[in-house]
Amino acid sequence: MSNFRTIWTTEDRYVEVIDQRMLPHEFVVVKLETYEDAVEAIKDMVVRGAPLIGATAAYGVYLAVREMIEEELDPSFLDHAFTALRASRPTAVNLFWALDKMREALDSADNFLETAWEMAGRIVDEDIETCRMIGDHGLPIIEEISKRKNGDVVNILTHCNAGMLGCIEWGTITSPIYQAAQKGIKVHVWVDETRPRNQGSNLTCYELGRHEIPHTLIVDNTGGHLMQHGMVDMVIVGTDRTTREGDVANKIGTYLKALAAKDNDIPFYVALPSTTLDMSIRSGLTEIPIEERNQDEVRYFNGKNSKGEMDAVLICPETTQAANYGFDVTPARLVTSLITERGVCDASEAGLLSLFPEYA
Amino acid sequence: MSNFRTIWTTEDRYVEVIDQRMLPHEFVVVKLETYEDAVEAIKDMVVRGAPLIGATAAYGVYLAVREMIEEELDPSFLDHAFTALRASRPTAVNLFWALDKMREALDSADNFLETAWEMAGRIVDEDIETCRMIGDHGLPIIEEISKRKNGDVVNILTHCNAGMLGCIEWGTITSPIYQAAQKGIKVHVWVDETRPRNQGSNLTCYELGRHEIPHTLIVDNTGGHLMQHGMVDMVIVGTDRTTREGDVANKIGTYLKALAAKDNDIPFYVALPSTTLDMSIRSGLTEIPIEERNQDEVRYFNGKNSKGEMDAVLICPETTQAANYGFDVTPARLVTSLITERGVCDASEAGLLSLFPEYA
Repeated sequence: MSNFRTIWTTEDRYVEVIDQRMLPHEFVVVKLETYEDAVEAIKDMVVRGAPLIGATAAYGVYLAVREMIEEELDPSFLDHAFTALRASRPTAVNLFWALDKMREALDSADNFLETAWEMAGRIVDEDIETCRMIGDHGLPIIEEISKRKNGDVVNILTHCNAGMLGCIEWGTITSPIYQAAQKGIKVHVWVDETRPRNQGSNLTCYELGRHEIPHTLIVDNTGGHLMQHGMVDMVIVGTDRTTREGDVANKIGTYLKALAAKDNDIPFYVALPSTTLDMSIRSGLTEIPIEERNQDEVRYFNGKNSKGEMDAVLICPETTQAANYGFDVTPARLVTSLITERGVCDASEAGLLSLFPEYA
Repeated sequence: MSNFRTIWTTEDRYVEVIDQRMLPHEFVVVKLETYEDAVEAIKDMVVRGAPLIGATAAYGVYLAVREMIEEELDPSFLDHAFTALRASRPTAVNLFWALDKMREALDSADNFLETAWEMAGRIVDEDIETCRMIGDHGLPIIEEISKRKNGDVVNILTHCNAGMLGCIEWGTITSPIYQAAQKGIKVHVWVDETRPRNQGSNLTCYELGRHEIPHTLIVDNTGGHLMQHGMVDMVIVGTDRTTREGDVANKIGTYLKALAAKDNDIPFYVALPSTTLDMSIRSGLTEIPIEERNQDEVRYFNGKNSKGEMDAVLICPETTQAANYGFDVTPARLVTSLITERGVCDASEAGLLSLFPEYA
């Protein structure tokens, strides 16, 4: 569907990724030739987004296997690689999942190199398929609104980037949007800039632009006003973690948009691959720890300066202290439905179990 | 109370103001010697905030009278000055109010120069007194929370700058806070950065720092999370316009914080001088037009760059379009009380008429 992916392999069987820190201002491709390259890419946020981190780590294992064989190194080299990859981003659930899959495949492998190559490819293919299915299940929701509006533009508000840039292709929340556009349904996306790291203005605007989806950038303060005035038909966001009862942890500020959607009777959807379900916990508010990040992400603003160079500007007095909470929790009562690769369900234990009975 | 004002007179009877465009990075004083200086100061946003704009315009009239007398100019010079001052910021209600007061005083004056000097001084004094009274009425609210918490820190969240920098001294929402601090009550303020113009990080952080009030800068997305976790005891904001039924127009994003306060049973106060009441309209949502501003305020971010110079950085693709709504309306049902110079009342017609019976 899209004209680019976030990770791909080269003819000489190495791996390339986009340096997402430079988006939207520059499109820089980084070649990964060793597992250390993969570790650095994850650590330095060259790549971000749970599925893409998982895929990068999987290819990191393949690169370690290749180096071990080509350089005739001791098997302990591979153990070091696993350890380093596992430590590259300590809270990413998908990272551990991908590494476990690679380990499992290698444990029963005859041909190490081919097995690693194939399993990494399969992890990538599975993400693409999962995102495509989320799109299949989300598309009818957009189609329905379009019909109700007699084909008029469907206005969709989103927060942060749960697009293809965090995945491989399609993305989660963008998958139904891209599919709707392909079917000729008129859509327009309000993009929250998503302070402090601006994934909305940097990444979502970038990828919607590349896919020629009409969109408008707004500051995070604006969504409530738009909803009060009938300018939003639906909200759709991603999630980092969803509990058994349907509480949703996502980028800080998501909760405020969910409140405004509720207050204005606008449906609020969460799109998620089931790999982000955490069926071991119930209450998002009391059981999901919220990461506190460096305060300079709040105090400084990154972008391209008047000379066309990347720079950061200080936006407060030198002495001002800031707090930087990365996520908030949207209680299930504010979520209209969850959109997963297996279908759409209520944000509740019963809803989730109807699609994922294996957790009963 | 404070160690500085936003406008003051010099020994040679000219006027000085702070260039607020340079805050918080530089404290630059601008001397106004002609009415044209006052017009430029208002137009270029050297001064901002309704009461301060009114005071600057009033002193602009005084400067015009002085020039007319010293240069033995025709009285039409004064008419030109009034016209230019009135056109300096077309939507500022306080500006017209201050100019009307000056005109009225001059119409019955024997000594033009002394009358203009005194009336401008009185407009300044009245603002200081109004803000002080708002503080007197708001202080018991903070005291009560402090008592309930056995003297523990009272956490107050605010949005935008309704501080002394928009007024002359005290400010509206800051007046109860400064008075509480003077009485030894422990307070801490969460300061929303307030995108897109960042009046929170630029101005509120600056003035709270100068007054040694403990405070922490947060992005606009954070307030809901803090409220969910008991880290906010009250919200207090200013307003640009309040309707007869208590709907409140204030900086974009205010409505989202009011929703979060309601959802978490946290009181939400609006502090206002009665000059911002608009008793001629009832519904804020349908009757208050919302200003749309230049999209580059969203696309670019201003601050101090790595070389210590003021600069702007682009935060989205070059081709991205943005929407920039300046204000939103918080319905009266989300407002706990209005704090005015005459006392505290319900955000309703009955509440407002109990304090301002002249509008019955």
